[in-house]
Amino acid sequence: MKQIILEVTKTLKLYKKMKFNNINVNISKKAKIGINVKIGDNTTIYDNVVIGDNSIIANDCIIGEPTNDYYFKENYENPETLIGNGSLIRSHTIIYSGSTFDEGFSCGHRVTIRENTKFGSNCRVGTLSDIQGHSTFGNYCWLHSNVHIGQQSTIGNFVFIYPYVVFTNDPTPPSNTCKGPSVGDYSQIAVGSILLPGVSIGKHCLIGAGSVVGKNISDEMLALGNPAKEIKNVKEIVSRESGLSHYPWPYNFKRGMPWENSSFEEWKALND
Amino acid sequence: MKQIILEVTKTLKLYKKMKFNNINVNISKKAKIGINVKIGDNTTIYDNVVIGDNSIIANDCIIGEPTNDYYFKENYENPETLIGNGSLIRSHTIIYSGSTFDEGFSCGHRVTIRENTKFGSNCRVGTLSDIQGHSTFGNYCWLHSNVHIGQQSTIGNFVFIYPYVVFTNDPTPPSNTCKGPSVGDYSQIAVGSILLPGVSIGKHCLIGAGSVVGKNISDEMLALGNPAKEIKNVKEIVSRESGLSHYPWPYNFKRGMPWENSSFEEWKALND
Amino acid sequence: MKQIILEVTKTLKLYKKMKFNNINVNISKKAKIGINVKIGDNTTIYDNVVIGDNSIIANDCIIGEPTNDYYFKENYENPETLIGNGSLIRSHTIIYSGSTFDEGFSCGHRVTIRENTKFGSNCRVGTLSDIQGHSTFGNYCWLHSNVHIGQQSTIGNFVFIYPYVVFTNDPTPPSNTCKGPSVGDYSQIAVGSILLPGVSIGKHCLIGAGSVVGKNISDEMLALGNPAKEIKNVKEIVSRESGLSHYPWPYNFKRGMPWENSSFEEWKALND
Repeated sequence: MKQIILEVTKTLKLYKKMKFNNINVNISKKAKIGINVKIGDNTTIYDNVVIGDNSIIANDCIIGEPTNDYYFKENYENPETLIGNGSLIRSHTIIYSGSTFDEGFSCGHRVTIRENTKFGSNCRVGTLSDIQGHSTFGNYCWLHSNVHIGQQSTIGNFVFIYPYVVFTNDPTPPSNTCKGPSVGDYSQIAVGSILLPGVSIGKHCLIGAGSVVGKNISDEMLALGNPAKEIKNVKEIVSRESGLSHYPWPYNFKRGMPWENSSFEEWKALND
Repeated sequence: MKQIILEVTKTLKLYKKMKFNNINVNISKKAKIGINVKIGDNTTIYDNVVIGDNSIIANDCIIGEPTNDYYFKENYENPETLIGNGSLIRSHTIIYSGSTFDEGFSCGHRVTIRENTKFGSNCRVGTLSDIQGHSTFGNYCWLHSNVHIGQQSTIGNFVFIYPYVVFTNDPTPPSNTCKGPSVGDYSQIAVGSILLPGVSIGKHCLIGAGSVVGKNISDEMLALGNPAKEIKNVKEIVSRESGLSHYPWPYNFKRGMPWENSSFEEWKALND
Repeated sequence: MKQIILEVTKTLKLYKKMKFNNINVNISKKAKIGINVKIGDNTTIYDNVVIGDNSIIANDCIIGEPTNDYYFKENYENPETLIGNGSLIRSHTIIYSGSTFDEGFSCGHRVTIRENTKFGSNCRVGTLSDIQGHSTFGNYCWLHSNVHIGQQSTIGNFVFIYPYVVFTNDPTPPSNTCKGPSVGDYSQIAVGSILLPGVSIGKHCLIGAGSVVGKNISDEMLALGNPAKEIKNVKEIVSRESGLSHYPWPYNFKRGMPWENSSFEEWKALND
């Protein structure tokens, strides 16, 4: 293990003075580290973590955080954690064991992701976001800073979630019922919105800032307010900048998307 | 001190490879550590901290964080911090000196709790919560992730507070007035609610998600909205799951409660 | 470098046992540390950071965090970071390279401040706040806990921002438009408010708790609600405590302000 890391840092003469000095790095013998992986100072990697090739784990991270049983069960075995190839995990992030990240995952600082979370490929999670585990994300989901995803949430592909959004799951707190929200492909959940337990958001929806969503929202609808109401089809939203319709957004936004070098129409024709 | 810790870790052969390796652990000579306490790697424990028996302080924690005076007063003496027996403090938590936690306290990651906070027994505080100090909690208070409690707040017993709730204390910001909210026994404050300065919530209340509460709420009332209004008695809320009344909730929820192995009626008869 | 730090800690005999033991402190040879600076245990200071005299950087901080290019560009050079004299940066704070802080800056724990942020003098930023960079703050801005400032925001002097406030910048998410809000001198943004992209708040305004502000607000107005509406002139707000008008607040609040030892009228006469 150490050999791989030293080899990597040896090729990075300029960087050596900054994050990757092998200071206070602790890696379990039961972890598997891919080729060309960099691991930052003060980072700990626990048992049964697998890190894909060409990934960067920055400083002060905890990867493979044991679940609650670790503290109380004598024969505790850490579940497997899979970090896909080409991932970039920024500093002070805690990722529990038992979660899976497909290739190209990246995140900000101080992210917390609990067990049994499944991320598709090319997802991003912002600084301070708190994923409570037992949830599923498709590909190209972008969560900004300080998003809270309660357990049993189901999120499709190309779903963007903005700061201080909360996904809840207990309709009559406290109870033993746990029903998270579900969000369809391409939908956008704007800042400070709350999705109430079990609510279902369709595809290509836009939930306005500061909404409290208690009823299901149909495909392509703009919904907002407390309680949130469907206002109009997203196609009717006119951009103040361009004076044109902006939604469905994939026709007008390409940065970082798989249709970046072609168009959404072309990409869709090939992928549907 | 070190001897106790080494003895503990010696009994935990399987764990030794994970959190408790005595790496970069710094403990003040003026701290008192109980029997069978585990202290995680990279954790610091400052002067005059007392940790009760059978407690676990995980990795990267700061216990007994000095108050502001530490930086500026030559003869600074760290106030006493009391962590009760059987507590579990998860990683990256900062607990200031001068706070008290009765037995069975547990918390998530990256919690910050400032000075002069008093927690009763069996309280829980979720990841990222920020307790500003000078506040009082009864027994069995459960704060979920990312709760913010301003100074001078008073919280009863069995109060559950959900993510992104904020307790405020300055009615005309900025001013020198500091009047926190008070919440009665068994009340539930749902996600994203704001309690305005000095507001008083009764017992067995339910504050709905995303509410801004500026007026006192009577016992057993459901209140919601911005501004929050009393809607109806909580007994009239029907669970969508069961079709039955769920509140007052202690009759229908037992997990982790002292009436877990009997009933709320029985427990109440013995404890009132 | 080490000499300076040791000299400082030598004068602080009582403190030596607490934060400043030179344990796991890593400072780039390309950093410049002023006179009488204290640097806490487990803190890292990267290339081209300049720390002003009499400043305190507490434990577990990262100062001069490299930007995204660091991970991908061979010839990466860390931009300069300037921390003014007499600053106090509390533990677990991450400050990116390329930001500037005038004298007397202080912050809470776990603050994240990204590149190209400019703070005037005597600003304060609370625990968990997340400044996304590319923004400007005047003098004496006080941000409380858990404030989120999106890119391209412009904040005047003496602006106070309360917990869970979010400044946004994309009017049709996702898009390539980035227009942050602007806030005039002396304005107060109360807890849980959302400022929508490009909105302009005047001077001496008060934005009520839990507001969603989508339209510009004129000088001296109280605005609140979702969507926020102008309610009345702030002079008409009567303090429940004193029964008198509290706003414009500088006439009634002095603590920590440059008119602390005189009056706002006097100070203004000398400074306008």
